[in-house]
Parts: sequence; structure tokens; C-alpha cells
Amino acid sequence: MVKVVVLRWGHRPQRDVRLTTHVALIARAFGADGIILSDTEDKKIKETVDKITRNWGGSFFFEMETPWKKTVRDWKAKGGTVVHLTVYGENVQTSDVLSRVRKIGKDVLVIVGSQKVPGEFFSEDVSDFNVAIGNQPHSECASLAVFLDRFWEGKKLAENFENAKIRIVPNERGKKTETSRRF
Amino acid sequence: MVKVVVLRWGHRPQRDVRLTTHVALIARAFGADGIILSDTEDKKIKETVDKITRNWGGSFFFEMETPWKKTVRDWKAKGGTVVHLTVYGENVQTSDVLSRVRKIGKDVLVIVGSQKVPGEFFSEDVSDFNVAIGNQPHSECASLAVFLDRFWEGKKLAENFENAKIRIVPNERGKKTETSRRF
Repeated sequence: MVKVVVLRWGHRPQRDVRLTTHVALIARAFGADGIILSDTEDKKIKETVDKITRNWGGSFFFEMETPWKKTVRDWKAKGGTVVHLTVYGENVQTSDVLSRVRKIGKDVLVIVGSQKVPGEFFSEDVSDFNVAIGNQPHSECASLAVFLDRFWEGKKLAENFENAKIRIVPNERGKKTETSRRF
Repeated sequence: MVKVVVLRWGHRPQRDVRLTTHVALIARAFGADGIILSDTEDKKIKETVDKITRNWGGSFFFEMETPWKKTVRDWKAKGGTVVHLTVYGENVQTSDVLSRVRKIGKDVLVIVGSQKVPGEFFSEDVSDFNVAIGNQPHSECASLAVFLDRFWEGKKLAENFENAKIRIVPNERGKKTETSRRF
């Protein structure tokens, strides 16, 4: 099965803490292998996300500081596909862009911006596809979640996360969790 | 066609400004009729969201201050369905909860919490359904976006927003917008 890694670009340590944390948790919950916080570091977010992975399972990685150019260059050198999520891109609903991404069948690096991104992100040198989760302004959280949900055809929301210490037992009413060293 | 309205509960004016703004923009972009910021006010967010609606079209409403109990009571009195998005709920992927919501065919009030919600949100007095967008911790933004995307079977991402002053022309490369008094 192909791998998906998220590249979070433009994180501003004070301003974007909560949104970047959400982006990372969405990446994990919706089946990405890991996230790269490019060109900067934020140890507190890494700590939060790593702790969730330890408790809730799986092998999600959180990497920091790598310059985005290096990540993209290395990714392409290995034959991977780069998808840039942007409101200006091809509409995931009205175009066939998602099936074109899938058809290539290679690992996917998903670029998610925070601030306004450099113009070159739109060019072929960086992105193989510019994908819009609708062409209305909303949220990088929503874009990433819906892209991954559709990319995996929903299946990742059913996934079991291995080596979890805690897990939720889905319930019509109230909260039910199970804790264990191993399930 | 049924209506969907989002009830944002537990907004904290300083801490949650950006996330609540994202929640509101997601509600709009993914086809809700409006959002109610319950039990509190935040004029700045309302201004931001109303401005986006003026420029990007549609008739999305942003209401503040109404106590959540009143909103829920009135909604139920009119025969509407209440869906509470929570990580503890029935899994949207592994259960038939979404088709049960759809089958009722009534307007849907979607409750999206911020802080830990009151226990009564899980009970029948408040929520007809507790729905989990997967049972892993992530983000209310992701939950709302994926719930609405699946609820409308993706169709709202193709929607034209009426009376827009600006709109994006989807593009494989670069940014393309059109501005007009009327399209």
C-alpha cells in the first residue's frame, strides 16, 4: 500500500500552535505515516503529538526542521508524487484529479500551507498536482482531512492502531474506553 | 433538500478564535445554512465570516449568544434531528449511523464542541445521534468537514455560491480568480 506523508509549511511558533497540532493529529488519524514540520521546530507540538501516538497507538512520526526543498527533492528522487492542497487548485469534486493521483500509485507527499505559500509551490518543480477541496476559503484542517478521507476511500477511519494503551469503544450514548498494555 | 445548521459550543473568546473561525468557514464551504456560536459572543469572528460570505457569496448566517438549550429545544420542537460529533460516538465508517441520520430526512443540527462538553450532550434529551469521525483523537474541524462531505455525498464542494463578488477558477497551476458584481 502506498505511503502518505504530510509536509506542514509556514508554521509560526506562537500563532499556529493549535492549528498545526490539529493538522498533525488529522494526519495521524486519517492514515498518514507521519508529518514533517518544515524549516522550523516546535518541540511542544512534537511532544503533544508523540504522546498521543504512544497512548493511542500506531507508528506515526513527527519530524521537524528539514528544509521543504530538501524534502521535496528527496521525495521526487525516490519517485514519489507531490500533492499541494490549495484553494486555487483543481476541484476534487468536479475534476478527475484524485483518480489521476491514485492512478500513479506512488507514495504521496501532501503539502499543507499555513501562511501564504511561495509561488513556486504551484509549479511542476514542486507539485505534481494542485488540489482544491472545493474552491471556497475554509481551513487547511478540513482540506487535509477530506483529501485523506477520499484518498483512502474512508477506510482509514476503521483502522486499528497497534500497541495502543487506550482505545475508545464506539457507543451510541456516553463515553466508553478500554485501557490495556496490549489489546 | 434538508437544512444543516452547526451549533458551536464552548467557544472561549481568546483561546479559540482561529479554530472557531475555521469551524464557521468549514460549515459554510461544506454546505451548512449557518452557524450558531452558543452562549457567548465574538464579534470579530462574526465580522470575519460575514465578510467572507459577502465577498464569496451564498447566504450563510452567523448567529451568536443563543443558549444551546434553547437552540436544541426549538430545533426538536420543529421536528429536527440533532447530531453530536464526538470521538466517543458511533463510528461513521464502521457503523450505519450516517444512513440512519439520512433516513430520517429532517433538518440536522450538528453540535461541535470545543472544550469538554457537558455529559448531557450524549443523552437522548439533547442528541439523537452521537457520531464519531473515527475514534481517534484529532480535530473538530476535521470532524465537521468529513461529516458534511459524507452527509452530502461530496456534492456541496461543486456548488456555486450566489451573488459572489469573487470566485476562483480552478487551475492546474497558479492562482486564477474572477471578480464581478454579478457572475
